[in-house]
Order: sequence, then structure tokens, then C-alpha cells
Amino acid sequence: MSLAFEHVTLGQRVLFGTGNAAANLAAEVARLGAQRVMVIASDRETPMARIVAAGVEVALWHHDVVMHVPIETADKARAAAAGHSIDLLVCVGGGSTTGLAKAIAMTSHLPIIAVPTTYAGSEATNVWGLTEASRKTTGVDDAVLPVTVIYDAALILSLPVDMSVASGLNGMAHCIDSMWAPRADPINAALGAEGIRALNRGLPLIAEDPAGAEGREQALYGAYLSAVAFASAGSGLHHKVCHVLGGTFNLPHAQTHATILPYVLAFNAPFAPEAEARIAAAFGTTGALTGLQDLRKRLDAPKALWDYGFTADGIAEAVAIILPAVPASNPRPVTTENLTRLLQAALTGEDPAVLLDL
Amino acid sequence: MSLAFEHVTLGQRVLFGTGNAAANLAAEVARLGAQRVMVIASDRETPMARIVAAGVEVALWHHDVVMHVPIETADKARAAAAGHSIDLLVCVGGGSTTGLAKAIAMTSHLPIIAVPTTYAGSEATNVWGLTEASRKTTGVDDAVLPVTVIYDAALILSLPVDMSVASGLNGMAHCIDSMWAPRADPINAALGAEGIRALNRGLPLIAEDPAGAEGREQALYGAYLSAVAFASAGSGLHHKVCHVLGGTFNLPHAQTHATILPYVLAFNAPFAPEAEARIAAAFGTTGALTGLQDLRKRLDAPKALWDYGFTADGIAEAVAIILPAVPASNPRPVTTENLTRLLQAALTGEDPAVLLDL
Repeated sequence: MSLAFEHVTLGQRVLFGTGNAAANLAAEVARLGAQRVMVIASDRETPMARIVAAGVEVALWHHDVVMHVPIETADKARAAAAGHSIDLLVCVGGGSTTGLAKAIAMTSHLPIIAVPTTYAGSEATNVWGLTEASRKTTGVDDAVLPVTVIYDAALILSLPVDMSVASGLNGMAHCIDSMWAPRADPINAALGAEGIRALNRGLPLIAEDPAGAEGREQALYGAYLSAVAFASAGSGLHHKVCHVLGGTFNLPHAQTHATILPYVLAFNAPFAPEAEARIAAAFGTTGALTGLQDLRKRLDAPKALWDYGFTADGIAEAVAIILPAVPASNPRPVTTENLTRLLQAALTGEDPAVLLDL
Repeated sequence: MSLAFEHVTLGQRVLFGTGNAAANLAAEVARLGAQRVMVIASDRETPMARIVAAGVEVALWHHDVVMHVPIETADKARAAAAGHSIDLLVCVGGGSTTGLAKAIAMTSHLPIIAVPTTYAGSEATNVWGLTEASRKTTGVDDAVLPVTVIYDAALILSLPVDMSVASGLNGMAHCIDSMWAPRADPINAALGAEGIRALNRGLPLIAEDPAGAEGREQALYGAYLSAVAFASAGSGLHHKVCHVLGGTFNLPHAQTHATILPYVLAFNAPFAPEAEARIAAAFGTTGALTGLQDLRKRLDAPKALWDYGFTADGIAEAVAIILPAVPASNPRPVTTENLTRLLQAALTGEDPAVLLDL
């Protein structure tokens, strides 16, 4: 088969080390020669951010962080940065905090050092999001890509096990879906496979030993790779299905992703033998579905959509909305019939293997 | 084991497609909005470069390409670029051609589009090299990293099979050595493993069907990844050994690399179980050494250093020069005794497995 692709690698420095965030941040601020640093952290994240920024002279602390980055919040932060002649943004927190730093960088082109405290992954992408009049707009701009990301598993130790697992399985979905998403290419597939490997190793360790660093490190590393692969490859079938279940049917985000993933994998795997083999190798199992199901079992992951409010009545409408959104890149041709079967199986928690040879 | 690393990802666009170089180049020149394009190609490479640049308005053709980029050659090219108000450099050729474009970019900060016609890999790195008074200097500067690389396996079809195999095994050495080089990290390891996978698939295809595109594509893709991994991870034990055998003992470059690689792999593998497992998985075999040896057998690769002029008399001197250069990152502690044993085995083409449990 002929190899043809376009792959954009985003340039970024990643500093990874447990307990090293403060030292790495101080060194990185010095390396960049910044004089006027603005640290962005929500009130909740501020105690942690103060520790991380202990070795840095901070010109401005900014705590006004709001979910989904309302434009008014962004404008206030932009004015604050300009008013204080800021030359470097440091964000310590989750997706909303990173998102606010990106909103400032969009208009000011200031560099960002991101110090993530969740598995959100926004720090590894050039995607921004803003909300105006309750409407979220997203876009792509290389100016918002953090120049440096500082990962420190110690900052994420307090994330509860169930949230860690849910977030990790969301990362797993990014990795697997990047194998057949619209801009899928072998580089994304290799990074996605490395993400699968790390998450498969990390998530059970978090469940067994929530206070241990190793599981958190592997999960954080895997979440980073999942964001890189997903940002490059785009949304595949899995994300299109989950988007409709979440958006139109209001199913909870994390549980929906965790439930749907094995069904999409079983659905596509026979039509994507190379992706199947990559995923299996990353899990260290003979089959991709076996690997994912073994992990889900160890994590006691969600199994059936009806546990989260979905009913058989919704299937026809869901199929009708999902079908036109299915990427042309999907390895298995998607029809009303087989997509209906996929959702029926996911509804009741049937063995996903039934989809292998429909 | 704790996960700590610093990884710098270089931002670059890769366009990969057989027979598409001309179309991809025209589109990329337009995307960058360049008005004054300088195309660099040696006399030998010019007929190919004219085809590749057919859709581009070329302000200046530059054919004065000399191996190892003498400073006089670089200065002339820099003056030519400045004299013609060039705003984009396009290089079509091998390492020396890419090297000349980098020499211009170093001082002018002009963007480069690289169209490689060999497996050299320079196009994927921020490393430059210049030769002044017969002395080669190399350095690192992000300004010399091509913004875009256009890979087209059709441009490499004329490379003879033996040179393709030699060059491909050199890429394989980069991939394997990046597992334990001084700046080894899991991201380099994942990219290196993907390179092993592609080279292991491509090189036998080239040997079996030299005119087919698939083998060339996989080898070109693998060579790109090997350059990315090697540039990031640095030189490990394998490269230190080969550097001395080439530099002090004048052994031929390609054959030395091909011969030494299984010995270094067998030497380190028992002390680097994770790397061993990654390499084995990339080869699709149960053991890393088995995978490499299977490939070498299919390619009828060089087996013993004595076939290339090395003798037992040289071993003690070689060991004495190599030993202080061995990176601290090497998984197996290297001693005069075990390094001597490694070279003894490589000299006569003994089974590398003897090094597994010295």
C-alpha cells in the first residue's frame, strides 16, 4: 500500500520529572530570559502554583479563571498582561487555566510555559477555545502552543482515582481513534501507540497504588502523547459518536467515552489490520480488543450506555445525527444498519466482539 | 522506575507522497507566500531538481555544491542569496545540498524547503556542518531546520540496491542506538521503534524489487524517523565504536555500521530489557537480536570486521580510544575486558549471542 501523508510536528520542549516542577520552571524562565512573568492559576490551584513558582520573580498573579474561557475573562486577562508589560505567561492548572493563557497568547504572541495539573492535554496543542454569548468557538493558531510544558506527577497526586481513570481512558480513546481519524498518518499512529502503552501501564498502577508516583507518571506521559496524536489526527468515529451522545443526549462525557471505545475498536479493527496490530502490540496482547478489555476489566470501567440514561428509543435519532459526521477516513464503511448494531451493543453492554464479524 | 526526561520536539511539516514532489513543492511555495525562490542542486542533481521545481517560479538556480560544505562554498551561496533578494531556499539533493542550504539559513534566517534524494536524514535535524581549512565544525541552530520536508520515493528509485541497504542499515543503527544514547527518552524510543518497523519492512522489499515504490517509501520514512530520533538522543555506544573504527582505522563507514550493530545490540540488550522489548516488538520477533539478525540475513549484510581491513592487532588500541568516549547512559557497564570481547567477536563474525551473557 502506498504511503502518502502530510504531518505537521509542533515544536515544543517537554520537561518531565516528579518533584521537579519548581526547579524546571525557574531554569526555563531563566533560559527564556523573561523579566516580567505573569502566573495564571485559579484560586483553587493557587497554593500549588505558589510552590511551583517559588523560584521565579512574578510580576503579576492572575486568578480570574473561568471554565470554557468566556471572552470577557480573556479580555480582562489580556489587558492585565499588557498593563504590566508581561513578557512570559506561566499557567499552572487544568484545561481552563491553560486555555486562558492561550487566549492571551493569541492576541499578544507572548510565549507560554504550561504546568498542567490534570490530564487535559491542552498544553500539547495549538488549539484555542473561547466562549462568547454561550457559544464556544475553537480555532488553531501556532501562537497559542506553549513553548515549554513542565510535567510533574506530584502535582496530580491529589486527583481522585476515579477521575484519573476516567481521564486516562479518555486519553486512551484519543490514542485509538487517532489510528483512523481524518488526518491519521503513521507518525500519529506511532505516538498514539506509545500513549496506549503508557496509559495501559499507568492506569492500573494508579488504581492499585493511588499515592505512588509511577502510575501517575505513566498516565501523565500517556495523556501528553494522546493529546499530540489527537491534535494532529483529528476526530475519528469514536469521537463523532461520543459527541452526539454527549451533545444531543446529555450523557456524561467520561463514562460515554469509556463505554463506547471497545465497540468502536471492535467495529473498525477487522477493517484496519495494521492499526489493530499496532494497538495489540502496544497493549502487549495478541489482539487489540483483548488488550483494551483486559485493561477495562482491571479498572472496572463503565460497560453499558443504559447505566447513564441512554435508551433504545434514542438509537435511531443518534444514528441519523452521527452518520453524516462519520469521517471518510473510517476504515469500515458505516451504514445505518451497522451503526445501529454498534449502539445496540453498547446500550446493553453486550460483548463488543459481536461487532467483529457483523 | 521513575520517568524523568527533557525532550525537544522540532517543529516541521512533512509532505510524503510518491510522484508528488513537484505538486507538493508548488503548493508549499504558495502557502509560504515566497516570491524569490533559490533552488540549490548539484550539477548531477539538477535534471531531477528541474522536474521537481517545474511548478515554481525560480529566481535563482545554484549548482555549486561541494561535499562537507567548505566555508568558501557557503560564503558564495550566501552572497548569491543576498544579491538576488531570495526569500525562500529550496534544496533538492543529498546531505551536501541540504547542508549548503543550512549554511545560508544560518546567517540569513531564510526558510528552507528540503527535497531529499538520499536517505541522509539531514533534512530532519537542526544540525549544521561547515569545513574550514580541512577541519569540519558542526553545531546546532534551529534556524537551519527546514520548515518543510518533501519526501518522494520516486526521486530515490535510482539509488542502487547495495547503497540503499547500506544507508538503510545506517538508519537502523541510529534507531537502535537512540534507545540508550545520552539523551535517550521514551519519545525518542517510540520514534526509533517506528523507524525500525519501517526499515525492517522496506529494506527487504528494495532488495527483492528495486524498482518498486513500497520498499523505497518505507525506507525513506524509516530514515526520516531515524534522523529525528538520533538528532534528539545523540550518539550511543554503537556510534562511538564506529567513529573510532572509521576515524582511526579507516574502515569503510557503511560496512562498519552494518557489522557492529548486532554486537552492540547483543551487548546491551540484557541490561536494557525495556529497549530490548521495544526493538523486538518493532521487528515483530520474540527477541531483538533475532529480529535484527533475520533482517541482516535477508539482506546478506556484512558480518566480520576482518573483511574490511581490521585485524586483531588493532583491538587494544581501539578499545583504549573508545572506552573514554562511552556515554554514561550506556545500560551495560563497559570495561576493557568486555569491549575487547565485543570487538573480538565482531572481528571474526562470531555469533553476537555470545555477548548476551559474558
